[in-house]
Amino acid sequence: MDFSGWGVSVLAAGKGKRMKSSYPKVLIPLLGRPILNYVLDTIGECNFGEIEVVVSPSIRDLVGEIVGNDSRLVLQSEAKGTADAVRVSLQEFPGAVQNIMVVYGDMPLLGSDTLSFLGDYFQRNSCHLAFLTACAPSPTGYGRVIKDEHGLPQAIREEKDCSPQEKQIKEINLGIFAFDRKKLSQLIELVDNRNQQGEYYLTDLVALAREKGYRVEAFEVDWSEEFLNVNHPQDLATVIQTLREKKVNSLWEKGAKIVDPSNLYLDWEVEIGEDVWFKPGVVVEGPSSIGNGSIIGPFARIASTVIGENCRIELSVLEEATLEAGVTVGPFAHLRPGSYLESGVRIGNFVEVKNSTLKEGTKALHLSYLGDAQVGQRVNIGAGTITCNFDGEKKNPTIIQDGAFIGSNSSLVAPVVIGQGAYTAAGSAITKDVPPDALAIGRARQKNVEKWTKRRGKRSSKG
Amino acid sequence: MDFSGWGVSVLAAGKGKRMKSSYPKVLIPLLGRPILNYVLDTIGECNFGEIEVVVSPSIRDLVGEIVGNDSRLVLQSEAKGTADAVRVSLQEFPGAVQNIMVVYGDMPLLGSDTLSFLGDYFQRNSCHLAFLTACAPSPTGYGRVIKDEHGLPQAIREEKDCSPQEKQIKEINLGIFAFDRKKLSQLIELVDNRNQQGEYYLTDLVALAREKGYRVEAFEVDWSEEFLNVNHPQDLATVIQTLREKKVNSLWEKGAKIVDPSNLYLDWEVEIGEDVWFKPGVVVEGPSSIGNGSIIGPFARIASTVIGENCRIELSVLEEATLEAGVTVGPFAHLRPGSYLESGVRIGNFVEVKNSTLKEGTKALHLSYLGDAQVGQRVNIGAGTITCNFDGEKKNPTIIQDGAFIGSNSSLVAPVVIGQGAYTAAGSAITKDVPPDALAIGRARQKNVEKWTKRRGKRSSKG
Amino acid sequence: MDFSGWGVSVLAAGKGKRMKSSYPKVLIPLLGRPILNYVLDTIGECNFGEIEVVVSPSIRDLVGEIVGNDSRLVLQSEAKGTADAVRVSLQEFPGAVQNIMVVYGDMPLLGSDTLSFLGDYFQRNSCHLAFLTACAPSPTGYGRVIKDEHGLPQAIREEKDCSPQEKQIKEINLGIFAFDRKKLSQLIELVDNRNQQGEYYLTDLVALAREKGYRVEAFEVDWSEEFLNVNHPQDLATVIQTLREKKVNSLWEKGAKIVDPSNLYLDWEVEIGEDVWFKPGVVVEGPSSIGNGSIIGPFARIASTVIGENCRIELSVLEEATLEAGVTVGPFAHLRPGSYLESGVRIGNFVEVKNSTLKEGTKALHLSYLGDAQVGQRVNIGAGTITCNFDGEKKNPTIIQDGAFIGSNSSLVAPVVIGQGAYTAAGSAITKDVPPDALAIGRARQKNVEKWTKRRGKRSSKG
Repeated sequence: MDFSGWGVSVLAAGKGKRMKSSYPKVLIPLLGRPILNYVLDTIGECNFGEIEVVVSPSIRDLVGEIVGNDSRLVLQSEAKGTADAVRVSLQEFPGAVQNIMVVYGDMPLLGSDTLSFLGDYFQRNSCHLAFLTACAPSPTGYGRVIKDEHGLPQAIREEKDCSPQEKQIKEINLGIFAFDRKKLSQLIELVDNRNQQGEYYLTDLVALAREKGYRVEAFEVDWSEEFLNVNHPQDLATVIQTLREKKVNSLWEKGAKIVDPSNLYLDWEVEIGEDVWFKPGVVVEGPSSIGNGSIIGPFARIASTVIGENCRIELSVLEEATLEAGVTVGPFAHLRPGSYLESGVRIGNFVEVKNSTLKEGTKALHLSYLGDAQVGQRVNIGAGTITCNFDGEKKNPTIIQDGAFIGSNSSLVAPVVIGQGAYTAAGSAITKDVPPDALAIGRARQKNVEKWTKRRGKRSSKG
Repeated sequence: MDFSGWGVSVLAAGKGKRMKSSYPKVLIPLLGRPILNYVLDTIGECNFGEIEVVVSPSIRDLVGEIVGNDSRLVLQSEAKGTADAVRVSLQEFPGAVQNIMVVYGDMPLLGSDTLSFLGDYFQRNSCHLAFLTACAPSPTGYGRVIKDEHGLPQAIREEKDCSPQEKQIKEINLGIFAFDRKKLSQLIELVDNRNQQGEYYLTDLVALAREKGYRVEAFEVDWSEEFLNVNHPQDLATVIQTLREKKVNSLWEKGAKIVDPSNLYLDWEVEIGEDVWFKPGVVVEGPSSIGNGSIIGPFARIASTVIGENCRIELSVLEEATLEAGVTVGPFAHLRPGSYLESGVRIGNFVEVKNSTLKEGTKALHLSYLGDAQVGQRVNIGAGTITCNFDGEKKNPTIIQDGAFIGSNSSLVAPVVIGQGAYTAAGSAITKDVPPDALAIGRARQKNVEKWTKRRGKRSSKG
Repeated sequence: MDFSGWGVSVLAAGKGKRMKSSYPKVLIPLLGRPILNYVLDTIGECNFGEIEVVVSPSIRDLVGEIVGNDSRLVLQSEAKGTADAVRVSLQEFPGAVQNIMVVYGDMPLLGSDTLSFLGDYFQRNSCHLAFLTACAPSPTGYGRVIKDEHGLPQAIREEKDCSPQEKQIKEINLGIFAFDRKKLSQLIELVDNRNQQGEYYLTDLVALAREKGYRVEAFEVDWSEEFLNVNHPQDLATVIQTLREKKVNSLWEKGAKIVDPSNLYLDWEVEIGEDVWFKPGVVVEGPSSIGNGSIIGPFARIASTVIGENCRIELSVLEEATLEAGVTVGPFAHLRPGSYLESGVRIGNFVEVKNSTLKEGTKALHLSYLGDAQVGQRVNIGAGTITCNFDGEKKNPTIIQDGAFIGSNSSLVAPVVIGQGAYTAAGSAITKDVPPDALAIGRARQKNVEKWTKRRGKRSSKG
């Protein structure tokens, strides 16, 4: 199909009051992507000539950030209804646009086949106005389609304006319209706001077009989740569930081994290699990727992280980190932004890494904090090691060279360099650089006070 | 409806052997509340004049703790059956009570509409005995309703006493009875225990009442989960599932954003503000509340905790803590009882707080233990800081004043005061008070032993 | 039934390409056990005389490890099809074997009743060849059963070789065959590989047997998950789900209290006592057991661990550990292999235990690492205690005797002995043995530098 002569208006100005969100409704994320992005992707697959997104002033900047160069933002200055939104959009389309499709910005499951189908139907039947309808399982809340004795649509009646008889009608308007641009321009000026809401309804165009004798068609399709508008927090949960199932189904061909698909949470953009095992309770966010043969979980949150082949992640949180092949992380590890772990690195329990590189084969297995550190190959970071990277004013670097051995409970007071093959004694505060192959000791000599518990008697002591 | 002349007997003396619980069955918690509480709430909504809970001696004290002043405990000294339980209960009702409703204490999903309906039906039809029945999908285990040629109930037959033909009957007794008190007093003395269990069955009253020519009605309702008795561990799981769905459905109107309703576990009494996000794997217990705009999870257990607005909790455990607005906790943090975090406090990974107050803007981001501490505003708690609050005999306080900077790996040996704006050097044991603006150092000077690894050769060393 | 004269061939040589596994398909674990083990267990329940598992050379050793003495491995040197696999297997059966059953090794849900039924049917009807069929909800991918005008099976046609009409047939071959051995030996040599795959199909035996005039029967059973072959990663998820439900259903009789059965993951071999509570998010692996009255979760991974009565485990990872009664672990604790915790031991947050014994009543509640340690009774391990067990060359033991008190932030440099009732001062590095009842101090004396923050001015400092 050639839709180059078409323009699409995406209605994204609605407030979404029932969502009670501090955030514009169309930007609420589903599997890490705003609702609107799903709609724009669907539209993008159809190759329409022009795309406009109609927004309210208050959300203009936020929506602008996610609408790329393929679309144009159009401002609806007041919330005067859908017909008003289409009117302002119409003014912005270039002259070459001959037909207009109108789509809601809160319909993230809508498929491109459906849009193509309506456009195709419109063209083949030389319609002036065509729209999709369905018999919804529960029509409450939707506009009903009033038909004449020939079965042609006479009007769409918003529920609030329906008579009791009209409320019995099961065929509802799905909110996806195709228009002849010229007719639309003419009709849109005739819409009034004499209804219960005092709004200009796009749906009034059906009756107006019939009055003018234009060719109006309602095409009934099977009801499906595809037509769900996200109006209510429960809709959000429903749509997330559907998208999660789609995402999981895209993984089987990679040979994913998923212990419980209902307990796996992958953002839409996550990419995985072959033969990845997902244990229960795994959340992977953002533009992350997981290499062949890696085993993830049980329990993990992985965000914006690149995981190489044959890695093993358990009960850990990884954020903006990069892991080469064969890295093991966890349980109870936290990789923060800027963690770069070369192949074979092992990060154990209660270890935090931030803005640090650990080279091949290095281990930090217990109760450590590595921040702003450059750690060489085959380094052993003893239990309880802490890089004291913050002096109250700025962050300072720690450099640990290849093959060094950091004794347990060492405090590495940055900036400091631990030379190649050097040792630090357990319990030391290291405040000065340590030359290669040297042993640094920074601890007091032990004294034993004999029979102390007896002398101490019942007094309290500082333990 | 006016039920002020009614008494309700709640039968709660059953042993619940199949639960194999160390605990009385009616006190097993569902979403943090004993089963019996749900039943008492339902009864409470109907405004019956008098409520009695019949218990066995062994569970009297435990049940007594949760039964408030609105109900009276009645003791059934031996487990002689339901008719015996009603008999002892009957003796305790004041004279003003004219009608009696009998309800099982293990039916937590029972709705107050159902009770009201039965009471209303009983009164309007001037019954002497009325009870609810249903056609259960699988009648096994329930008493069957034997009817006469007029469709009136003749008897209820416990399954163990049913003939093979009677076992084919689908209409079962739901166990909810309404009685005229005088007739009940008379009939209850006629019940015998000549049955397979040697028990006095309440259900025998149906046949006895018919023999006397009293007006007996069985009202059939649609089967629903509402009538499920918790007799078996699987029933418990079923009922929890239903209550969880009810709880989740009560959150939508608050604009809750729930990534996966099936992976959210809120106790019945949890309250939430508007626009709260729940990521997967969140358990909230007890009388907790969560403020507007907070984001919880993935993964958390929050118990008896107050969370302010716009907080962020990830992969952490919070118990009896209070968080003001804008507090971030986790991942891998543990707030124990008595933690009070003022607005803007940040608690990071592998940090435990117990019985401590942290004032506005203070941070403890890594590997720390703060116990019995009073921490001022804008304090920086370095990684690895430990309040040594226990001397083997008692707990001692640590006081850290506004703007202090605790160096990494500090041991603060309580009781101790760190003055306003003071510093402690990394790796120090702080045993004496630190004046305001002073620097406290309690660590040994570092020595480097050059070429140590070479001299050491193959000997083992203390690293 | 007596199946002592029967042999069973388990076809386990298939590559399972669609699984994209680095691992032989029949060895992929389901609830901790290889797929093949489930099949062998089912066969074992039927008491067949002889069992052979046909494998390809590449997986021989791996499969050999899990196939016990009850079965014989048979090698199919080339992947030439199922008839070839049966041919090589046939040669290995002792002469006493008169009938042969053929079963796929990737059908883990197959029940022993089904196998017994087919064997019984075969014998009672004096068949030469009998096989099971069903009308599958979606027959795609299965071989279709072609029948003659008498309703007897004429042939099984693999889908790739089906005509369009034959593809319409709903009755499919389930892949479970019983043969008269002599007839099988004769027919198996007649199979050719003139088909689209160039393979020798076992299913061709049906047509060949009919040509010879042998008695061939197809017995149609109801389709069920039992007949699912694990060919595809999605099948794996389906089968795991079914096995998980079976496992959970086996726990009710023990009085298990399961908050959410869909969020509990028990390996097949896990054993539990009575009245165990499972909170959400619990994964128990391997040959683990959980004692009466223990409470597990929310969130835990427990592998190859023995948990005694009345233990309490929350948000922790336990591996190859042993817990006596009344032990509490977590949240955020990690017990590694060789952890032995006597009764009443308490392990708190951010504590790791490895290859260590903690005797009765000992506590390690905060931020500690105990590795290669022998810890006596009633020892208090202060927050931040670290056993420095690794010197860069080998692991050394730490011995802490009864009633000792380890001050916070102690570094115990192994090998070292802390005597009975001894104390170590907070922040000490303990490098020498501490006599009983002595106090060991290994830290520097604190100095306060007054007005330091003022003198320091804008300079950066080492905090």
